Amino acid sequence: MKIGIVGGTGDIGEGMALRLSPKYDVIVGSREETKAITTCETCRETLGVRGLECSLIGVTNQRAVDEADIVVLAIPFKHVTPTLKALTGFEDKIVITPVNPIERTDYFYYAPPPEGSAAMMIKGMLPSSATVCAAFNNVAANKWKMLEEELDYSVAVCCDDDGAKKTVMDLVNTVSSLRAYDAGPLAAASIVESVTPLLLNIARFNRMKDVGVKFV
Amino acid sequence: MKIGIVGGTGDIGEGMALRLSPKYDVIVGSREETKAITTCETCRETLGVRGLECSLIGVTNQRAVDEADIVVLAIPFKHVTPTLKALTGFEDKIVITPVNPIERTDYFYYAPPPEGSAAMMIKGMLPSSATVCAAFNNVAANKWKMLEEELDYSVAVCCDDDGAKKTVMDLVNTVSSLRAYDAGPLAAASIVESVTPLLLNIARFNRMKDVGVKFV
Repeated sequence: MKIGIVGGTGDIGEGMALRLSPKYDVIVGSREETKAITTCETCRETLGVRGLECSLIGVTNQRAVDEADIVVLAIPFKHVTPTLKALTGFEDKIVITPVNPIERTDYFYYAPPPEGSAAMMIKGMLPSSATVCAAFNNVAANKWKMLEEELDYSVAVCCDDDGAKKTVMDLVNTVSSLRAYDAGPLAAASIVESVTPLLLNIARFNRMKDVGVKFV
Repeated sequence: MKIGIVGGTGDIGEGMALRLSPKYDVIVGSREETKAITTCETCRETLGVRGLECSLIGVTNQRAVDEADIVVLAIPFKHVTPTLKALTGFEDKIVITPVNPIERTDYFYYAPPPEGSAAMMIKGMLPSSATVCAAFNNVAANKWKMLEEELDYSVAVCCDDDGAKKTVMDLVNTVSSLRAYDAGPLAAASIVESVTPLLLNIARFNRMKDVGVKFV
């Protein structure tokens, strides 16, 4: 299974490349191919020190979409619209969105687009044969890159297609100690995305770091 | 400290009476005083079997407000407006709202009022000297009454007054293994309330029961 990471040079993207490339073929995309290549070199070194082999290539975002079976949109919410407008070829792909529309004043709050959630907005921007899945939304960005850290969290997965949902849940369950939960259809993704500003508030007001969530 | 429970004969209200009355003076309110008295008798028996003494009286909702330092609104969202319109005397009280505005189709979703959350709506209906605190929103209703069950969950607390917030967080931390977290000002309560429909979806789609949440 080939996993393309759009925005693969950011914190989440690079962390996903590190965690997924020992098990899957990972295609790291970036607006600038050279950046993607550099990220892959860094990942290979980090994994090599740990004696881990990996399958990683650095390419443009467009090639990451073209060559992947599953595309992860590892980009901030504000970059989603310009990024998706510049890309084509999402037909028949599974597209994972870990994107959370968040704003802050003296606290963090959920600021979804008119579609109700980043997930629903993304669905509306992609061809109808693409299957959008919300997943990984509540995993702290910093933790992805810290390979020495176990990711012992619950991951809520929303999707309208049962087959794609199962594929993504299986993928989630291969990452560290992440545990996937079916959280319903894509329209229910807003309440998954909105957990992230809550976790940021919990971290901020209780002087904690990289707070995650577990369903128990 | 006297804790008045408006709607104290429902599942959450009765469960709170059971869990709080061994440690605090609990005033169970109901629209019908006789129901409140019956609930208190049931609670006393349940606690007595366990060798626990308790301080419990059953009264009207109005008397529960009048005699309490802290008032808990243990009522469904749809009852909030008629209940609060029928009650007076909230001046200078701490008012805890565990209320979640939830609707369902084939999944559960967050359906806040125009004020943005049940908490903010409640604040708008009460005198300005009342201090509204969102707490206990994500504890499964059924679990409250099962005294044999440890409540090992995180509780996000939102409030605009630091003193009242601390009082409520201290109260939360005395209940079973609940652990209170400062989740910011009352305006941030929407993302706390919205966790509950997510937990209901997780329970439903993964065939689980009484799902709760932990911040880790």
